[in-house]
Amino acid sequence: MTNQHRYCVIMCGGIGSRFWPYSRADRPKQFIDFFGTGRSLLQMSYDRILPIVPKENIIIVTNDKYAPLVKEQLPELDESQILREPARRNTAPCIAWAACHIHALDPEASIIVTPSDHVITREIQFVESIKRGFEFVDSCDSLLTLGIKPTRPETGYGYIQIGQPETDCINKVKTFTEKPDRDLAKVFVESGEFFWNSGIFLWSVDSILKALHEYAPDLMSVFERGRASFGHPEEEMEFINREFPGCVNISIDYAVMERADNVYVECVDFGWNDLGTWSALYDMSPKNADKNVTQNCRVISYSSEGNVFAVNPDKLVVVSGLADYVIADSDDVLLICPKSEEQSIKLYVNDVKLAYGDKYI
Amino acid sequence: MTNQHRYCVIMCGGIGSRFWPYSRADRPKQFIDFFGTGRSLLQMSYDRILPIVPKENIIIVTNDKYAPLVKEQLPELDESQILREPARRNTAPCIAWAACHIHALDPEASIIVTPSDHVITREIQFVESIKRGFEFVDSCDSLLTLGIKPTRPETGYGYIQIGQPETDCINKVKTFTEKPDRDLAKVFVESGEFFWNSGIFLWSVDSILKALHEYAPDLMSVFERGRASFGHPEEEMEFINREFPGCVNISIDYAVMERADNVYVECVDFGWNDLGTWSALYDMSPKNADKNVTQNCRVISYSSEGNVFAVNPDKLVVVSGLADYVIADSDDVLLICPKSEEQSIKLYVNDVKLAYGDKYI
Repeated sequence: MTNQHRYCVIMCGGIGSRFWPYSRADRPKQFIDFFGTGRSLLQMSYDRILPIVPKENIIIVTNDKYAPLVKEQLPELDESQILREPARRNTAPCIAWAACHIHALDPEASIIVTPSDHVITREIQFVESIKRGFEFVDSCDSLLTLGIKPTRPETGYGYIQIGQPETDCINKVKTFTEKPDRDLAKVFVESGEFFWNSGIFLWSVDSILKALHEYAPDLMSVFERGRASFGHPEEEMEFINREFPGCVNISIDYAVMERADNVYVECVDFGWNDLGTWSALYDMSPKNADKNVTQNCRVISYSSEGNVFAVNPDKLVVVSGLADYVIADSDDVLLICPKSEEQSIKLYVNDVKLAYGDKYI
Repeated sequence: MTNQHRYCVIMCGGIGSRFWPYSRADRPKQFIDFFGTGRSLLQMSYDRILPIVPKENIIIVTNDKYAPLVKEQLPELDESQILREPARRNTAPCIAWAACHIHALDPEASIIVTPSDHVITREIQFVESIKRGFEFVDSCDSLLTLGIKPTRPETGYGYIQIGQPETDCINKVKTFTEKPDRDLAKVFVESGEFFWNSGIFLWSVDSILKALHEYAPDLMSVFERGRASFGHPEEEMEFINREFPGCVNISIDYAVMERADNVYVECVDFGWNDLGTWSALYDMSPKNADKNVTQNCRVISYSSEGNVFAVNPDKLVVVSGLADYVIADSDDVLLICPKSEEQSIKLYVNDVKLAYGDKYI
């Protein structure tokens, strides 16, 4: 079976502030080689989609200012495959644009939408899951989200409760649930009915456009005005630069997924982590003999365990008597902070902005 | 009274490894502006001697490779005032060369010899003490060392026990004592008879040469061979480059002061610290509201007290949950270490050498 109508949208506009200062405004998380493998999270996201979607059907949606980084990291892409958002809006405007863009290229398209900054460890299972997902959304008018089999009562993720089964591993969605507290998360995991909301979606271009028209009519009225421009790169960009900044800031989950009634979840188990926190990075990464995660930097440690170091490759860190800390260094900023305090990093970033403006952001 | 025969020798060849990595082999401790005042320790040493010794009589003895740093930091000096040691030997060869050099310029000279990397806080008392010292060594054949009134039972310093008084504040030296243990140090301080050995010396050029001939004849036989070259810069440097590396590695204390019988101590109290450790730097430095020493770097701290930060001026450090640590950053090296472990820093430096050679030293 041909995959020429299959498209991938990689959302690549995030600013990665939870990994500040290792992730900086001018080189956020998705562009960083977190595991010292030589490939950034974006490149890893691209690599794992290549067996499923033709290279020329991969679309990167990013902020205008990150477009040079995308071109640097994915030089094999054509300029036309990079959609440059003139402003940061949430996922709904991003997906609406990408859908209009792809519809103009191929009205029969089906699409996988994926973040650029997650980690997936079992790529063969990933490929199988995505192929199954494409087959499903090609067969019926549906919006499919990927639900990850939970391995722990994580309070940092949203959960999806599954309803009636449709196939072996695809069910109707019963409810979407925001981040639960610890006790509720335990109940969720034990029930077997709840899956982590991965933020990976599949649908035909028709299905998502229909759903957007129905559930986000104000947003789509903007894109309707640009209908004639899609498929004509210059006109399209002119339209986007003029109209996109006026779009509502809203997530696709809130705008569509939680409202539509043709929403399905494919239950998958391919070693997923949204890499949303330093602790998540620590848990995902190989440890050295001292249980430190040193990534690709040089660390000499004494009586120091459970730390995660994120430092530029040629830098040497010598550390003594430090347990369970984040040590992140990025040229002109150094952060030293207990892993247990990582939720406060965004407060630190605010204090830094108050004191020094954008200099260190 | 004229001071035209008064000279100052500033010893400036140390490598400052105890402050690694803030002090690096290519820019050791004495060249660093530790207090963010705009003047390095060397420049502060120079500034405080200017009221006592004519500028053109100040001699800096340094390692050949640090001569450019000396010229950069003290541009008002003539090239001829910088003596470039071709190899690191201890203080006795350094002082012997400086004495021969000065004797050729002025056989009536009297000399103060001082380290370049100590801190003195009460400069008016310093000037008074040094003037008194010069008057003493001008009046009799004597080797005068400065003893600092101890303020705590410090175990990191050598002590001088005073003997028979000669003037108000100058006594014969009874004994030199190496670093004592805690209990002995307490006894020393309580006795009132013991003073810290500052490493600052005064003598006439005749007295020190005579003493060197008597107590370090092997060393002086080297300099005897160069006698004709002193006072002729090119010949002198040619001689030094050839012969100095063969000199014995020995301190002036061990070679002369502990052996001679015309050794005196002037008891002084001018706020001295040899700045030998991070803790000493912490103790000497102004603290912010969180009891952190942040010097001239930018620090935002949360639940963090008693730390000393040594980081390049434009760098921002954000730290949480860290008490009584050293945080020292120097471009390609970061050290994080409890202040209480600072004696281990030299072991860390050894490990770094074993792993990476001189790259990070």
